Amino acid sequence: MADSQSRGRLPDEFTLIARYFAPLAHGFPGAADLKDDAAVIVAAPQNELVVKTDAIVADVDFMASAPPQHVARKALRVNLSDLAAKGAVPRAYLLTLLLPPWVQESWVSGFAEGLRDDQALFGVHLIGGDTGSTSGPLAVSVCAFGEVPRGRIIRRAGARPGDRIFVTGTIGDAALGLEVMMGRIADLDQDSAQALRQRYQLPQPRTTLGPELLGLAHSSTDISDGLVQDLRHLCESSQMCAEIDLGAIPLSAAARRVLQADPPRQSLILAGGDDYEILFTSPADASGAVSDLSRRCGIPITAIGQIKSRNQQGSTVQVRNADGSLLKLEYEGWQHFGPRSAHQ
Amino acid sequence: MADSQSRGRLPDEFTLIARYFAPLAHGFPGAADLKDDAAVIVAAPQNELVVKTDAIVADVDFMASAPPQHVARKALRVNLSDLAAKGAVPRAYLLTLLLPPWVQESWVSGFAEGLRDDQALFGVHLIGGDTGSTSGPLAVSVCAFGEVPRGRIIRRAGARPGDRIFVTGTIGDAALGLEVMMGRIADLDQDSAQALRQRYQLPQPRTTLGPELLGLAHSSTDISDGLVQDLRHLCESSQMCAEIDLGAIPLSAAARRVLQADPPRQSLILAGGDDYEILFTSPADASGAVSDLSRRCGIPITAIGQIKSRNQQGSTVQVRNADGSLLKLEYEGWQHFGPRSAHQ
Repeated sequence: MADSQSRGRLPDEFTLIARYFAPLAHGFPGAADLKDDAAVIVAAPQNELVVKTDAIVADVDFMASAPPQHVARKALRVNLSDLAAKGAVPRAYLLTLLLPPWVQESWVSGFAEGLRDDQALFGVHLIGGDTGSTSGPLAVSVCAFGEVPRGRIIRRAGARPGDRIFVTGTIGDAALGLEVMMGRIADLDQDSAQALRQRYQLPQPRTTLGPELLGLAHSSTDISDGLVQDLRHLCESSQMCAEIDLGAIPLSAAARRVLQADPPRQSLILAGGDDYEILFTSPADASGAVSDLSRRCGIPITAIGQIKSRNQQGSTVQVRNADGSLLKLEYEGWQHFGPRSAHQ
Repeated sequence: MADSQSRGRLPDEFTLIARYFAPLAHGFPGAADLKDDAAVIVAAPQNELVVKTDAIVADVDFMASAPPQHVARKALRVNLSDLAAKGAVPRAYLLTLLLPPWVQESWVSGFAEGLRDDQALFGVHLIGGDTGSTSGPLAVSVCAFGEVPRGRIIRRAGARPGDRIFVTGTIGDAALGLEVMMGRIADLDQDSAQALRQRYQLPQPRTTLGPELLGLAHSSTDISDGLVQDLRHLCESSQMCAEIDLGAIPLSAAARRVLQADPPRQSLILAGGDDYEILFTSPADASGAVSDLSRRCGIPITAIGQIKSRNQQGSTVQVRNADGSLLKLEYEGWQHFGPRSAHQ
């Protein structure tokens, strides 16, 4: 139906694949150099495959003006983050690319460059995909494959009463980074602004740390929609409640600077999303092992609260202020469509 | 960045998943009722996983006004068709749904209904996905998983000199069906028009026949971009050439009626795409076994030509007219972007 003749800017689909994407499949035999209808993927005998798909859309999940290298890496990394939270080692991915008319060949070239760099960094290969045209915003969907020992995947549903709640890294930087990019934060030093922006533009999935959580974590999820909302989902799957200490949530120096100047922005820490850190729960007696893991991986891991048996009254996730009072949450986290449940 | 508050028509994302998509995951343990970050999929010990992703976009691959049941089924079936051509038995799929603002809950409900019906028909389960918003046209991306005995996948690269070229079903109906829907074919009886339209709206992937090709076919591909173009890709992968007889290409009664009235439309038979039939090659002495398979499956399989050693002169795919002369191909098949190679 679409008149592909009107699209002179890009080489034809098959040339694009041969020129930019087939090289990303080299070295993965099941990918057949992207010259077949489908790919083959086999897990090691003691492992099983973990699969995840997540899409990013221009002007929703990234700015259309973002460098194509960043768009590529973000699309891949948001999926690798989910694999990491499940304890899986990343292996391969499929790519769906919907390109609007403004896209030129140089954009595709930069996009493939971003993928190439991240493939080297994370040890994954492109094994298939689909490239099509759209009259709407640019969209990138990735389906990522990882491996985990059979039956060992770390689920959201596994938290037990008394489990400590841990998070990796620092929380809220990406949400504040978006505020910086939108020009909504004034008077911030350049280094802090840059640090926050980078956290929004380029997630750092915890792919090395994730598989080390096997045998250590009862439950786990990645933080992508917002700390409180993702913790609530973990609690609902586990049929548990959680209480976290506001003051315990690990903040970067840049985030602390923003909050000092404007305390109400703490809601973005709790609900802003795009952190791509791992939230997990472990029994209290595992705290030493968690500290060891943090040292070994060189990634901060911070205890922020505790899992409790389900309480029919009160909300699933409670956030306690320094004075012991409960914080009233106005907004729990990101979701597409309709009103957010926390507003109701 | 997007203001999800302005979207009152749909329930929130998590309600949509719980209401319409989680039921489609029931019975597949690795899907965790779509309440986790990722799914687990394990092939039977003697098998390996075949993976394929294909997206369809409104006004490119389907009409935005199409019933949501048809959109869902087409999105799934175009992927199952690829699995079938590889000899794989379908097992599961991931779904990415990008919804524009006009989509109401009733649309999502109809869409899920289409998936439910096809899941029962093809024996597959939804095991994960992503639902997001877009300001552009509706897009559906599916990543499908099938199983094939280890090392037995039927590749495009496998055709040998002397192989007979076979196609399942009839060719060109979907392309003519689109012509009917666009009002470009006049004076066609209602039954024929309806039969052609249905072939465009609802592909019939050869999922039962495909796995029966193991041990029978040297090479195989599904026909989605156009008979000649897909055959050319198979030949290129196999480093072979092909010659087919125009008169041997199997046509439905409805297609024959259109061609009688307007012979130049034969180019749509050769290049129109959207057939979702299987094109495969087998040694000449397998013709009896191919006939048996056709009878057993109740699906016509027709020999349309022969594989030849690569000839440096002439095109990769030659189409012979009834009088023995070679047909000049003006247009080889569908592709996104830029000029089509056959035009150059």
